[in-house]
Amino acid sequence: MTDKKSVFKRIRGAVQNHDAGALAGIFDECPSADMADVIEHLEPGERVFMFTAFTVEQAGKVLAEIESPVQKQILAGLDNPLLSDILQQLPSDDAVDILGNLSEERSEDILEMIGRNVSRELENLLKYGKETAGGIMDLEFVAVSEDNTVGDVVTIIREKKKVKNLYHVWVLDHQDKLCGVLSLKDLLVESSDRRIRDIMNPEVIFVHAQKDQEEVAGLFKKHDLVNMPVVDDSGQLLGRITHDDIIDVIEKELDEDLSLMTGVMGQPIAEESTLKISRARLPWLITGIMGGIVAAVVINQFETTLEKILALSFFFPVIMGMGGNTGTQAATIVVRGMATGDISLINIKKRLWLEMRVAFVNGIVCGLFLGLIVGFWFSDYALGGIVALAGALVILNSGVTGSAVPFVLRKCNIDPALATGPFITTLNDILGLLIYLGLLTLFLGEAV
Amino acid sequence: MTDKKSVFKRIRGAVQNHDAGALAGIFDECPSADMADVIEHLEPGERVFMFTAFTVEQAGKVLAEIESPVQKQILAGLDNPLLSDILQQLPSDDAVDILGNLSEERSEDILEMIGRNVSRELENLLKYGKETAGGIMDLEFVAVSEDNTVGDVVTIIREKKKVKNLYHVWVLDHQDKLCGVLSLKDLLVESSDRRIRDIMNPEVIFVHAQKDQEEVAGLFKKHDLVNMPVVDDSGQLLGRITHDDIIDVIEKELDEDLSLMTGVMGQPIAEESTLKISRARLPWLITGIMGGIVAAVVINQFETTLEKILALSFFFPVIMGMGGNTGTQAATIVVRGMATGDISLINIKKRLWLEMRVAFVNGIVCGLFLGLIVGFWFSDYALGGIVALAGALVILNSGVTGSAVPFVLRKCNIDPALATGPFITTLNDILGLLIYLGLLTLFLGEAV
Repeated sequence: MTDKKSVFKRIRGAVQNHDAGALAGIFDECPSADMADVIEHLEPGERVFMFTAFTVEQAGKVLAEIESPVQKQILAGLDNPLLSDILQQLPSDDAVDILGNLSEERSEDILEMIGRNVSRELENLLKYGKETAGGIMDLEFVAVSEDNTVGDVVTIIREKKKVKNLYHVWVLDHQDKLCGVLSLKDLLVESSDRRIRDIMNPEVIFVHAQKDQEEVAGLFKKHDLVNMPVVDDSGQLLGRITHDDIIDVIEKELDEDLSLMTGVMGQPIAEESTLKISRARLPWLITGIMGGIVAAVVINQFETTLEKILALSFFFPVIMGMGGNTGTQAATIVVRGMATGDISLINIKKRLWLEMRVAFVNGIVCGLFLGLIVGFWFSDYALGGIVALAGALVILNSGVTGSAVPFVLRKCNIDPALATGPFITTLNDILGLLIYLGLLTLFLGEAV
Repeated sequence: MTDKKSVFKRIRGAVQNHDAGALAGIFDECPSADMADVIEHLEPGERVFMFTAFTVEQAGKVLAEIESPVQKQILAGLDNPLLSDILQQLPSDDAVDILGNLSEERSEDILEMIGRNVSRELENLLKYGKETAGGIMDLEFVAVSEDNTVGDVVTIIREKKKVKNLYHVWVLDHQDKLCGVLSLKDLLVESSDRRIRDIMNPEVIFVHAQKDQEEVAGLFKKHDLVNMPVVDDSGQLLGRITHDDIIDVIEKELDEDLSLMTGVMGQPIAEESTLKISRARLPWLITGIMGGIVAAVVINQFETTLEKILALSFFFPVIMGMGGNTGTQAATIVVRGMATGDISLINIKKRLWLEMRVAFVNGIVCGLFLGLIVGFWFSDYALGGIVALAGALVILNSGVTGSAVPFVLRKCNIDPALATGPFITTLNDILGLLIYLGLLTLFLGEAV
């Protein structure tokens, strides 16, 4: 931490003095991911100056690591010739991601400046949806014919110097379709005159370009893969997805789930515009207020009961808290279980039954605890008993709702993560107040 | 989905008929990770029967994929000789994880049954904390001397058939210390008489065995690694961490954060005991109730105000919801930003200032919205105005609290994820009610 902080101070000093020489010295020591972090912490004007001091290679590596909102701001400050130089020497998937952050017009201008071969490749990649296998693949792979010998393949690999992180080569049949895979270890230990056909593994795991990235990540995890070939509908090899892309996917999907859970709607952490952030968060806040108004209308129905015993209103926060927490706990476990595959449609009933038992036990414990406090506070253990019963029912209801709603959402093809956030809390607030006030009115109606 | 469901039905049928032959047929079609999923959905007795029908290889692969609580139940049903056979042919890190799920006594008995060499290896691995680099490393790596030639290394790799997923070899100097790395691609393209010393990359990224797994994951992400050597204090090579271990770490850390956020305290999704789950969730629920009691005490202070205008209590849910949602949104973004490294100690002030501006804007919008509804409902726009002001202040307060608390927790060496759960919600409930009732009392005190 302190280390990065000192790098940050040195960089800031050099930028403020416009001292490109000092900057160059710092670049040499510092990995590009660290550099990207530091740049995100600089002021907008300082960031663009940094890029004028980079070499094209450095600029590319660092730019690819920078988060989208900050990247857009920097891209706006770089001119087209420089940007096209930077893109040409980046891996194709990184180059396409950056092009995707430009206006269509500017992206076309830059593609025209880039050498014909590279720009055609990039245009092909731009066709695929950002969250599909095609959208995250790169073109830096090695494909060989099944007729090749091990010696041929070694020659091919020698020629393909640009391909970094090469761990497997993929094998094509006579129709140029993917038909096998070979690890570099296989190539190393076999003698150089052996035919690829005879030593390849024909059981190659691949995906179609249109496959959703989350499903691709699932395959990587299931089979512990480091890379995976991407094919089109006819089985032609299109590109390669590598393990580091998958880690990005896992983290992005997690951020998406967290967004749904808290209602921040896909707002990147590095976003710097107050109004953009406000706009991303307001829908949930307004929805929450409307839910609260419904709760107010519910409470209003019990005005007579409340007028008799005002103290009942003191416990609204407890009742709402119990319902909200129980519902969130149940929903989180179910949603995570669905995401990891531990909970599937196979065992809905088993899970719901388990959650109901847990809610029953917790309802009794929490109900008793709350009832005793209320009974002691008002020296009225009859009131305490009724509150205890209400508390237990509120928890039972929230536990069941919290675990059932994610399944219902999934049936309706809505992301179940939605169930873990303000949605379930608001619903349980309203149901909880109904149970609490309804029960109290029922029991106290005659007594008072 | 339907596919796995049909496999599940076939397996269940075969298990219920005790038809081991039919089971063997299904095994051949089905990857071990899928098999593990299906087994988690079976009844306890059925699970153990499955393992008697597996070969030792199948049993090992499947057992390693099964979640801890279910794994423990199965381990209890397998006898020691079978278990020691299973462990011997598993990768060392998987074998150690399974041993860690046994009682110490049983683990020692089984280590005695296992061949001397393997058991000494496993005992060495058992020394390291489960969440450290040493705890997640395996021993299946290839190390060579800097004096070796490329040809020597190829011979060594040929001999080490057990090492799967081999992408790099690590180079040791004359003191057996780690001094370089070579990719298999380097080995393939260099001629066989070249010395390793001359072609290796001396800048090898490694970790010490005691390093926390989360920091190891950070290094993998930063440098896009597929594997990483683990060394002891003197620089001796101890083991290897592979990319699939890191994906597990990322998902485990995420589950830990979610546990803290929702108060389910490290309860595995596959846990089946009602009482264990209840016990894991109760601490948060009880804490929440105590927070709610504090809120009740706060409300009690404003009894006179409430007696005058009972309707003020109708809006407790709205006020609490606004505070809770705003606080959770701000805290989630800050906590995620800390986890991904996008927010660091460098830019605390900048972030807090940004969150304050956002809370200010959202406070005005939400306050106005709520104030208009209240004004319209009670045909009292003066009341609406006061509620609007209270709502705006509640949001401003929660936004600032929600974004500041994670930093405070981190300063105190407490996991900041704690700030995104019931903790911040309860705190904001209490503060929000104080602001709302305090402000109303102040303004309405004379008017009523």
